[in-house]
This record gives sequence, structure tokens and C-alpha cells, in this order.
Amino acid sequence: MTSNRIIQVGLGPIGRETARRAALRSGFDVVGAVDIAEDLVGRELSDVLDGVSCSGTIVATPEEALEAFGADVAIVTTISDLDRVVAPCATLLRGGVGVVSTCEEMAYPWQTQPEAARELDEAGKAGGAACLGTGINPGYVLDWLPVLLSSPMDRIERVRAWRVVDAGRRRGPLQKKVGAGLTAEEFQAKVDGGAFGHRGFMESLHLVCAAFGVDTAGATTFIRPVIAEERVQTEHVTVEAGQVAGIHQGAEDREGRVILDLKMYVGAKDPGDRVELEGDPPVKVQVEGGYFGDTATCAIALNAVPVIQNAAPGLRTMLDLPGLPAPRGI
Amino acid sequence: MTSNRIIQVGLGPIGRETARRAALRSGFDVVGAVDIAEDLVGRELSDVLDGVSCSGTIVATPEEALEAFGADVAIVTTISDLDRVVAPCATLLRGGVGVVSTCEEMAYPWQTQPEAARELDEAGKAGGAACLGTGINPGYVLDWLPVLLSSPMDRIERVRAWRVVDAGRRRGPLQKKVGAGLTAEEFQAKVDGGAFGHRGFMESLHLVCAAFGVDTAGATTFIRPVIAEERVQTEHVTVEAGQVAGIHQGAEDREGRVILDLKMYVGAKDPGDRVELEGDPPVKVQVEGGYFGDTATCAIALNAVPVIQNAAPGLRTMLDLPGLPAPRGI
Repeated sequence: MTSNRIIQVGLGPIGRETARRAALRSGFDVVGAVDIAEDLVGRELSDVLDGVSCSGTIVATPEEALEAFGADVAIVTTISDLDRVVAPCATLLRGGVGVVSTCEEMAYPWQTQPEAARELDEAGKAGGAACLGTGINPGYVLDWLPVLLSSPMDRIERVRAWRVVDAGRRRGPLQKKVGAGLTAEEFQAKVDGGAFGHRGFMESLHLVCAAFGVDTAGATTFIRPVIAEERVQTEHVTVEAGQVAGIHQGAEDREGRVILDLKMYVGAKDPGDRVELEGDPPVKVQVEGGYFGDTATCAIALNAVPVIQNAAPGLRTMLDLPGLPAPRGI
Repeated sequence: MTSNRIIQVGLGPIGRETARRAALRSGFDVVGAVDIAEDLVGRELSDVLDGVSCSGTIVATPEEALEAFGADVAIVTTISDLDRVVAPCATLLRGGVGVVSTCEEMAYPWQTQPEAARELDEAGKAGGAACLGTGINPGYVLDWLPVLLSSPMDRIERVRAWRVVDAGRRRGPLQKKVGAGLTAEEFQAKVDGGAFGHRGFMESLHLVCAAFGVDTAGATTFIRPVIAEERVQTEHVTVEAGQVAGIHQGAEDREGRVILDLKMYVGAKDPGDRVELEGDPPVKVQVEGGYFGDTATCAIALNAVPVIQNAAPGLRTMLDLPGLPAPRGI
């Protein structure tokens, strides 16, 4: 029986939700948490998880966590910037604690940030622990799912995957993150300023390309606004017709063999995930309504916890796991 | 670089198609074949593969194949009865050659035929080779696919999977196998006689139940005819209105947590594969038109060849592979 003693690193909305769900799972123990917020450090974790019972406290650093908690795996849900996530993850890995992170840029960083990838890989090998970046996107719908669906194909010629998310159904910060309520000019200024838009898109492309042996040199990506055709009001934002409803992003390799497309906007009419694989036999798959991101991200991270404990030490990706992350306890 | 030297065991329609596709793949070598047909033994394999070039000859037994060919994996596409497939597979496994078989009953035989399962497992361990039963059904759409699609779920409560195949688009023997053109009485007589209908259905159920920890005691299965509402004519058969167009099979566990449903009939109006997973988040997926079985079965077997060479020796299932069978060479 695998032991799944978890340290939750980062107690933002996704981190709290992940820890709460972990605490409710049989076979999982949340033994402690790490967060830098001064009003959290030193408190009982159960206090900040809406009364879900678990035993741990909240400490300020990974070093303290290694000292205080006997853990198997840390779930790291702090930020999207890989370069700022490497140090705490490497500390945990060198301490022998596996890492599963929803850091988007960790999904396949070998080409986008090779130094960070190498540092995680070396830390994992030094500590005998594996490290994985996962989530619903990147981690599943626009990268691993197309590979899973290709399994009964003899020949694959082109991969297309689309995800349309109704941001109005998602948490408030996400609605803001996609630019809902901005003018087109404000949106463009944010794009020009960098660090705007859905993260991990190029990493998804690289993962698919790695799976199918496609050259990633010259791959391109775009970010455009989705303009609201009519007024949309959500709990968190009001978007007038002509304002930005959200974001449209795409990525593809130079020859158009792998084409990924993401729209996240409030009031999306046909939310859903879609994969089309050209080849023999061709495959067309529709996920009706799409995977619900907030829940699915927590879930796939937790489902990966037993799997990475059996993985070879170092930085892994969804492509080289020794088993399938899946829920149990039907 | 993995070496994929293949022996094709069984030169029926699926076997020939698999060998032909293997010979056309880069990184694969078809080094020989086994078939009991007297008019095939001793011939060059390329002669019976429509001119596809490959080097091997056809021998009559697995023992001769071990003697004559240096191979990594045998692809066994002979019959659906596991008890008659065990002996040749065990011989190959003991000789150190991995086995991938489309024998439906090998997909998850641990409960349905535990002795046969054990014999394959022991032979594999003795020879240091792994053995896998796979295909499109069983092997993918009604068993492994629901598990793959559950990966981003926190909790799973019920699995439903449907497959509707237009048998009129498939090869002649399959149309006959599903009973197209029989009267309802003839169909029932065949059901009562046993060994009729799609094989491996209970094995699919067991595989899903194993993945999600569902008790299989008291699981049930049914076979009914699909009656044609109007005249259907295919290349191979004519079905009058009121005659049997094909087969409808189902299987479920005692509590209805896992429900599998298969219709294969000529003139099927909405062919396709569908998976619905109840839980959090719920997931509904439609494979438009469905995976095309004849091609997909050959493909998934070939895609499994490199994977089982890295698997632990013994009898494996789709649930415990060390990697994902997938095509390459986009």
C-alpha cells in the first residue's frame, strides 16, 4: 500500500482546494503546508481548510517543512514562473520528497527553460525523488489527451486540439487573468508588456511534439482578444459589447503538424474540448462542455501522487510516468 | 533505440494486415511468421503480404520460429479462445520473446481464466518477457479509454461506455460473426449454443473494475439481437426487415457502477464510441464515428511492441504498462 503523506506548498485558491480534497481522500494524509503569508505561518492547516480535519501546521519555508513533516510528496501550487519555483522544488527533491506541481511552465520545460529543467532533474536524482508538472492545461486536454487518443492509430499526420472555456463559470482571478472587461487597447498593452495570457502553451506544444517526434524549431504562438458581441455579466465582472470578453491563444509547429487553440472568455457559447487526429484511422473526439478546470487541476495533481513515487528520480513529464494517474474509490 | 523484430503468429486477415503494417513501419522488422495452414508453411512471408517487402519465411510452430528467427516480440492474432492460445504464447515467452496478442480473452484474464493467466505469467517470468492482450475492443474503447479519460477526476462514481459499430463497414467475417441475416430464432439458438457474440466483454468489465476498485462478484452480461427495421444490403450480406442486423451486448457489475454496452450491426445509424463518467468533475466524451476497429486493432498491437519490451516480465494488462502505446513518425 502506497503511503501518500502530502505537504501542500502554496495556500492560494487552488492550493487550499487541493489540500482539502487530499484530506478527504482515503489513503492520503496532509501532514503540513508551506506558505509565505505572515497571517498563515504558524497556524493549524485545518483552520484554513474550511474545517476539513488534518493534522499539520503551516510553516514558511520548504526547509522548515522538511524538518517538521515526514512526507512522501509535496504538491506545489504557487506561481506559474518556473524560474521562481525551481528553488523550493529543488530543496524538497534533494530532501527526498517527490514534487507534483501545477506550475504551468513545468509541464515540459526541457526546451523552453533547459537550465531550470536540468536543475530540477539533478535535484531529483540527488534526493531519489521524482518531479512532475501537471494540471488540466497544460497537463491534459491540449497535450496528453491527444497522445492518449492516438494509441489505436497506425499513422498520425496531424494533431489539432481546441479548448473553449467559459471563463464566467470559473473563479474570479481567472476571469481577470483572461482580460475580461478590458478595452482592446488595454488588452494589447498587456500583451506587449509580456507575462500576460495563459501560461504553459508552448510547453503543451513541446510535449505533443516530443510524443510524436515533431521538430519544434520555428514553432509560433499568438495571443488575441475575444471581443464580446453582447453585454456579459458574471459574478465578478461586467463586459460591454465591444470590450474584451477574454483571450484567444494558439500555438503550432512550423509545418502545422501540431495545432493547439485555446479560447477562455466570459459568455463562451460552446465550451468544450476537442481533439482531431488526422491519420489512419482518423480520430475525432469531443469532450462535451470540456473538463472543468479548477476541479480537474486539483484532481490530476492528486492522482499523480502515487504514480510519481514509482517513477524514476528526476524531472518527469506526463509522457514518461510509470502508470496512469487515476481516481479510485468508486 | 529499441529493436522491434517481430514474428507474426497467425496469418488470417488481421494477422496479414498487422504484419503488412509492421513491415511498412520504420524501426520495425518482420523477421518471420507462424501459421498452421499447409499452403502457407515454407513460403516467403512477403509473398502473402501483397508484395510488401520483408525478409522472413513462414513456419508451422512457435518452436520452429524460436529456432529460425531472432525476434523481440511475437504478435499473436490467431483465435479468441485463451485456453488454446496459452500454449504457443507460453512457448514464445519461455524462449524470451515478448507477446502482444489480439486474443480478446487475454485482455484481462485474471478472474475469468486464472489458470491460463498464471501459466502465461509464469512463462513470461521464466523467459524474462512480458505478455499483453490488447486491441480496440477489448483493449481500448470499452475499458482502457474510460480509465484514460478519468485521469483529471477527483472522484468517480459511475462508468458508462457505449460502442456502436456499423458492421456493414467492417470485414465480411465480422458481419457473419454478429449474426447479420439470421432469424431471431437462429440467433437465439447460437446464443444458447455458447461461444457466440463479441468475445472479451467480461474481460473489459474486469479491467475497468480493477482500475477503479469495483467488486466484480455478481457481474452480469447479456446478448440480444438487433432486429433490422428495414432492408439492409452490404457487400457481404442482405438483411431483410425483421431479420437480425447484428448483436447487442452488455455487461455490468452487481451495483451498476460500471456499465458497458456494445452494438455491432449492419446499417447502424449513429456509429460511435461514447464514455460518460459520473463524479467530480463529470466527463462526457464522444468519439465521432467511433474508432475503426480493423485498423485500430492492428495499430494498438504494433504500438504496444516497444512498450512491452520495457515492461516487467509476466502477464501484463493495459493498466500496468510502463508507457503509452502510441504511433510515431508524424
